[in-house]
Amino acid sequence: MATRKDSAIAEQTLAKIEKLALGVVSEVKRKKHPRLEVPLRTLSNVHFNARRKIIELGKDKQERTFFNVSQARKFMQTFLVASACKELLEAGKTTSIRDLYYMTKHTLGDTKQNTFEEQDESDPIIEDLEVTVDALREELHLFANRKGLMVGPMTIIDSGDTIDLRRQGSGGWGVPSIVEPEVIRFGKHEAKYVLLVEKEAVWSRFNEDKYWKKESCMLIHGGGQPPRGVRRLVQRMASELKLPLYVLVDNDPWGFYIYSVIKQGSINLAYESMRMAVPGARFVGISSFDPETYDLPAEVAIRMDDGDHKRIKQMLEYPWFQNKKWRRELEAMASNNKKYEIEALSRRGISFITEEYLPRKLAERDFLE
Amino acid sequence: MATRKDSAIAEQTLAKIEKLALGVVSEVKRKKHPRLEVPLRTLSNVHFNARRKIIELGKDKQERTFFNVSQARKFMQTFLVASACKELLEAGKTTSIRDLYYMTKHTLGDTKQNTFEEQDESDPIIEDLEVTVDALREELHLFANRKGLMVGPMTIIDSGDTIDLRRQGSGGWGVPSIVEPEVIRFGKHEAKYVLLVEKEAVWSRFNEDKYWKKESCMLIHGGGQPPRGVRRLVQRMASELKLPLYVLVDNDPWGFYIYSVIKQGSINLAYESMRMAVPGARFVGISSFDPETYDLPAEVAIRMDDGDHKRIKQMLEYPWFQNKKWRRELEAMASNNKKYEIEALSRRGISFITEEYLPRKLAERDFLE
Repeated sequence: MATRKDSAIAEQTLAKIEKLALGVVSEVKRKKHPRLEVPLRTLSNVHFNARRKIIELGKDKQERTFFNVSQARKFMQTFLVASACKELLEAGKTTSIRDLYYMTKHTLGDTKQNTFEEQDESDPIIEDLEVTVDALREELHLFANRKGLMVGPMTIIDSGDTIDLRRQGSGGWGVPSIVEPEVIRFGKHEAKYVLLVEKEAVWSRFNEDKYWKKESCMLIHGGGQPPRGVRRLVQRMASELKLPLYVLVDNDPWGFYIYSVIKQGSINLAYESMRMAVPGARFVGISSFDPETYDLPAEVAIRMDDGDHKRIKQMLEYPWFQNKKWRRELEAMASNNKKYEIEALSRRGISFITEEYLPRKLAERDFLE
Repeated sequence: MATRKDSAIAEQTLAKIEKLALGVVSEVKRKKHPRLEVPLRTLSNVHFNARRKIIELGKDKQERTFFNVSQARKFMQTFLVASACKELLEAGKTTSIRDLYYMTKHTLGDTKQNTFEEQDESDPIIEDLEVTVDALREELHLFANRKGLMVGPMTIIDSGDTIDLRRQGSGGWGVPSIVEPEVIRFGKHEAKYVLLVEKEAVWSRFNEDKYWKKESCMLIHGGGQPPRGVRRLVQRMASELKLPLYVLVDNDPWGFYIYSVIKQGSINLAYESMRMAVPGARFVGISSFDPETYDLPAEVAIRMDDGDHKRIKQMLEYPWFQNKKWRRELEAMASNNKKYEIEALSRRGISFITEEYLPRKLAERDFLE
């Protein structure tokens, strides 16, 4: 969109890409081997910052030289991707990572060699470029698949259009993949907190019951593991608008994992935690103690399998699950040998979740952090 | 929502459910075996109506009696589901089919028997109820998972909220699962046609380039195989607003299948074709002749696998692919042994698809029907 092209952030990102390229050119002119320094995205270079409460990337770097048979291909690919991103930024356009793969795929000269064979070759190169020039992929004008809808007492300005999230009917505003300040701005709002629910069907229950109106909260879902756009948007609401974030997920290891990624980031994308993680995020359920507190009958439980038990064991070792309440939670799930979906609450009534479960949880401050 | 409860259609659906129940009660009073007649949803009872150009359910029915060991469980389940839908309709609420499973799941008396063991037991019962009382599941107030976004020159009224689809920024309005006239009404519009694209990323390209504005068209995607809400909404725009529908999908058997389901309905859900299918839908690509016409380099092609060839063979036998142009299309794909994603067009430029490909296709009326 026209506004992006001239934006200060796009200019900065362009300058970062140009600096990368000029660095290599100057090495060539000085008769040195063209090379890049790419921060390492391996497990050994990832750690949990206990003070900031996020998973961070360390300072280890890897050299990528052109005159090295095993690195030449990746070297070439890195600049191909950088060049395509430059083209996008200059045109003021954004595109998908699938599109980028096709944009940059071609056969080299008269050979049968392609620049990329599959998208699983270009995706890691995008991540390399992100860490190398220190720009989120959204700043490189690339978008990922998106899921997620939002409603609530807020006006937002999306690419120049003013959208009233108080009047979105049963539909809701589709959260874009790129929600950087140059695209999405927050207008007037009366929200007191943000409620992120794991599942779209549960979001629909909350929207139909107009929970967000009664409670003055933003209501958003991520269709399972939230996509980048949803994570970044809740992070912006938490940091810029100072809104507390409550997360409602299934009572199973996957639900706990979703919460933990929202809270402190993920190992895979550790370099993005600073702009994606919400260390203050609170877990409002479903907790392993809820079935008793909220009187759920035995038949709505699901028996845990070996994979679930293995995941719980792993989680018990993560530094970010070391506080007493979380250990108690994880151990209770393992010893109950049962898990529960959010929808299991419907056994107590269609709107039990919006009228009794969550209001009581919040009133009693019965959440985990 | 309050409006639904009192709506004429909800009243009609309630009356249908009550009639079903009263029918059984009266049989019991007449000392007859309680029984139901459920239209058969098997392949043998499905046919293609060549005149109306939709896949239809035939008139065969199956009896379901309570005093039959193999049918008693399903008999009980049918009424459990009917009773839950009645509760939803009376409360003016809607819910997911997953929720319905939990709402109706309980252990019978002191036995270890559950009414339903898994959702794959309750879902077919919902379909049975739909055909038995002749009501779409949306009329029973049940929603499915949803995907899909829409923008374009139209105002819609969603549950009383007026939403201007001309001002949805990069986000777009999330198409709900239930888009029946009691929930979604069409307001003022200047649309000349509807463009349904298979993929969300491609939809974003069209939205960013404001194709819908230049072309005065509604722009909608279904995230792959469109969910029920998207299908029903395009069907309503085609039948009520008389807007032509153009479908843009991948050049592969799956893309062709998506188009064919939109056009004449599916075998599985044949009983819904009347309200879901758009017999006039036009296929604007990607066609197997496009790579030559639009000069796509060889490296963006994907080689077909055995499964693809098998699907093409099956399609060549479907009555709805019997016209000359479609046979030529399917045979060309098989003999090329190549398939193409929509994104392959990006090899020709970021906005090649919105600025050259589709405008030319439409101008030259180069589509299949």
